[in-house]
Amino acid sequence: MPRYALLVEYDGRPFAGWQRQADQPSVQGAIEAALARLEPRAHTIAAAGRTDAGVHARGQVAHCDMVKDWDPFRLSEALNHHLKPAPVAIRACRAVPDDWHARFSAVERRYLFRLLMRRAPATLETGQVWRVMHSLDVEAMRAGAAFLVGQHDFTTFRSVMCQSHSPVKTLDEIRIEQIEGAAGPEIRFSLRARSFLHNQVRSIVGTLERVGAGAWPPARVGEALAARDRAACGPVCPPHGLYLTGVGYPDPVF
Amino acid sequence: MPRYALLVEYDGRPFAGWQRQADQPSVQGAIEAALARLEPRAHTIAAAGRTDAGVHARGQVAHCDMVKDWDPFRLSEALNHHLKPAPVAIRACRAVPDDWHARFSAVERRYLFRLLMRRAPATLETGQVWRVMHSLDVEAMRAGAAFLVGQHDFTTFRSVMCQSHSPVKTLDEIRIEQIEGAAGPEIRFSLRARSFLHNQVRSIVGTLERVGAGAWPPARVGEALAARDRAACGPVCPPHGLYLTGVGYPDPVF
Repeated sequence: MPRYALLVEYDGRPFAGWQRQADQPSVQGAIEAALARLEPRAHTIAAAGRTDAGVHARGQVAHCDMVKDWDPFRLSEALNHHLKPAPVAIRACRAVPDDWHARFSAVERRYLFRLLMRRAPATLETGQVWRVMHSLDVEAMRAGAAFLVGQHDFTTFRSVMCQSHSPVKTLDEIRIEQIEGAAGPEIRFSLRARSFLHNQVRSIVGTLERVGAGAWPPARVGEALAARDRAACGPVCPPHGLYLTGVGYPDPVF
Repeated sequence: MPRYALLVEYDGRPFAGWQRQADQPSVQGAIEAALARLEPRAHTIAAAGRTDAGVHARGQVAHCDMVKDWDPFRLSEALNHHLKPAPVAIRACRAVPDDWHARFSAVERRYLFRLLMRRAPATLETGQVWRVMHSLDVEAMRAGAAFLVGQHDFTTFRSVMCQSHSPVKTLDEIRIEQIEGAAGPEIRFSLRARSFLHNQVRSIVGTLERVGAGAWPPARVGEALAARDRAACGPVCPPHGLYLTGVGYPDPVF
């Protein structure tokens, strides 16, 4: 069966997350239902990142197996047609080898977290940013983040629900930038790793927010990491500022 | 009665426009209802730009008259509290003189129009951009736009519903930029004038899109303008890429 890689964008707000669920809308379920309109049967697709409820994607990558030999462009067009009106779009589609796997072939995941600093509620960005009403010290957050870069046991920054075999991960980069967005000053956290633990990004951003607010000295991030204790983590931040922005493969796919 | 200027942001999607209507939600109606929670009586507020259904604002300016002497910051906080969950936010509030008027004191309006060029439907930007599926020639659109800058009779680019006394307006600037947005390549049209005619921005952007697509030579924009005939206009583009970004006053208010 020919295999296709899909570059997927979605607004996470109406979904219980990526993963198909019996009784709730999911991104996986929406794409599989669209595939069933093209080739009527049960479809099971795999994705590089199983994003949580409310988390968005600009560059999720999934793959599907088809019976028919589809032209990739026509497959993406047909899927987008059948996905409407769900806020899920196939941005690109490529034929890939049979042994290529969206999840297991991936060697890098990239996430963005958007934090909006302002008093007034968000309007055009509702559900797309985490709004905090105080200002944050970017330099202090960078100093705190520096403790996390590299290979560490991230037990502190991992959900108790996490199913990963090991808590040891290598965080390749945390970039923290302040930009002047249309809605006001925004902090953008860009994180890059081969793979992440469940809730790792939200645990890190929620902890760094405490540092930026002055409630935690930066060194406490290092102490929390060294504690290897979930209880040492700062508050986990809400999902709706989080975006899966891209996935890396040994050979670029798109 | 003390008068207050309000800097207002809103997502235009759920509203029939700025102006209060008997049977449909409006931004004016939402703010007036919030004011009535603070001082129970009928309120009538005025705004610099009476935006159409689906049009957004980052920097709309309105004013209200209160009985009580409110601290401006507390007034904005109380309004934001009562505006929830409508996607309307008061970004700033200032006490202004009794003879200051959000509409009649304004000497400049600034609009942004966002156009997204891509095949795939928008997801996170649904209702916030105009998506076109072909690419556009920015240089050609700039050449077409150049005919419109300055003082002209804009009858061609004016809705037949327009209530303005005169079709003569001075367009101070049309800036056209292509940026690489998170959803793909975007064209941003920034327009600046003392005031605009009804549907003027959407008539101009819809016409320039035809130039960018190659369907109109740039010089046809000049001919359409000179015709002073609504029938000579290109198609009026949809409202949902349009943002009122700011209003200028002789003395800056915010």
